[in-house]
Amino acid sequence: MLKKFTIEQFTKELAADSPVPGGGSAAALAAATAAGLISMVASLTIGKSGYEEHWEEMERIRDEMEEARHFFLDAMDKDAGSYAKVIDCFKMPKNTEEEKVCRTEAIQNALYEAAVVPLRVAEKAASLFEYAGIVIEKGNKNAASDGAVAALMARAATRGALFNVRINAESLKDPQKKSEILKRAEELEKEADGAERKALEQLTL
Amino acid sequence: MLKKFTIEQFTKELAADSPVPGGGSAAALAAATAAGLISMVASLTIGKSGYEEHWEEMERIRDEMEEARHFFLDAMDKDAGSYAKVIDCFKMPKNTEEEKVCRTEAIQNALYEAAVVPLRVAEKAASLFEYAGIVIEKGNKNAASDGAVAALMARAATRGALFNVRINAESLKDPQKKSEILKRAEELEKEADGAERKALEQLTL
Repeated sequence: MLKKFTIEQFTKELAADSPVPGGGSAAALAAATAAGLISMVASLTIGKSGYEEHWEEMERIRDEMEEARHFFLDAMDKDAGSYAKVIDCFKMPKNTEEEKVCRTEAIQNALYEAAVVPLRVAEKAASLFEYAGIVIEKGNKNAASDGAVAALMARAATRGALFNVRINAESLKDPQKKSEILKRAEELEKEADGAERKALEQLTL
Repeated sequence: MLKKFTIEQFTKELAADSPVPGGGSAAALAAATAAGLISMVASLTIGKSGYEEHWEEMERIRDEMEEARHFFLDAMDKDAGSYAKVIDCFKMPKNTEEEKVCRTEAIQNALYEAAVVPLRVAEKAASLFEYAGIVIEKGNKNAASDGAVAALMARAATRGALFNVRINAESLKDPQKKSEILKRAEELEKEADGAERKALEQLTL
């Protein structure tokens, strides 16, 4: 599992001449980092005097961000796995008509999965902007810049995951599945920059 | 050393209620990820037919990105260490005039270091945009989106590191050091968004 790799090892695997792990896993890692940073700012606020009115909200945020952090860590593997599956399907035999039909169907199913997995990452990464904005605004002032770094990472994660959504969705033959996924990707893409800017506006530096 | 932590462990340490590791180390990790991805696209291009004219440039890029990846991995610790030093200095005794002078000087030196370390990260992260643009444009088309994710990560790394530069530089008493650092930070900040856009424009998706 990629989350069990050391950071040094993971970046070495990224750099290697194999397409997996690649940008999809890197995007999920950026999202896990963002969730971790938001969790930290919330943790540094809970119990700190002067912030009493926000303790309860910060506890809720910390718990949700811990759930999100684990989701993204697992998504690093899911993304790599779904892409590896596509590559495997392309290697299936195509000698007979039957084999060709079978191979095409397997490729289409794998591509759909390889589009949906990063779409879920992008959707959840896009949900981080709101949390980042809240911890920057109401959390421990000394850690506000960590919330700001989280917003930057959430944008990189969202937009990065969407590149993988698009690449795989573009090759889908089912027009409805294809257009549904591409439409959702476009919405998320449009939201990301504005949502990041809104979160960062809370920072008074 | 943070680079020896597993990804799971590092994000857990980020999330913990301690300011270190925080946004500075996360920014350095994003930069290491970006360098790794650029290195991957270059590696997937070297030796691939159809790309002969770019093999030599891709070899140079791969080598430079490997150097950069190690620089950023080490910067994760340097950043955390320089910030921990600032916190330690604030805990120094301040009972006598002599102690106060000594403490102030130690804090100022530590703050300078804690501003310069992320400034070097930001400068080197900002240098990644050009490489990302080249591998997207001339590298293996199948991996172009990985180069695009690298550009997103480079922006998050550059701007993230600059938050830490500013926070620490703002407390510097030496007006010349302070203005020099803040001026350089402003330049890099202004460049980042445009440089990312320019790199992403090479992507035909």
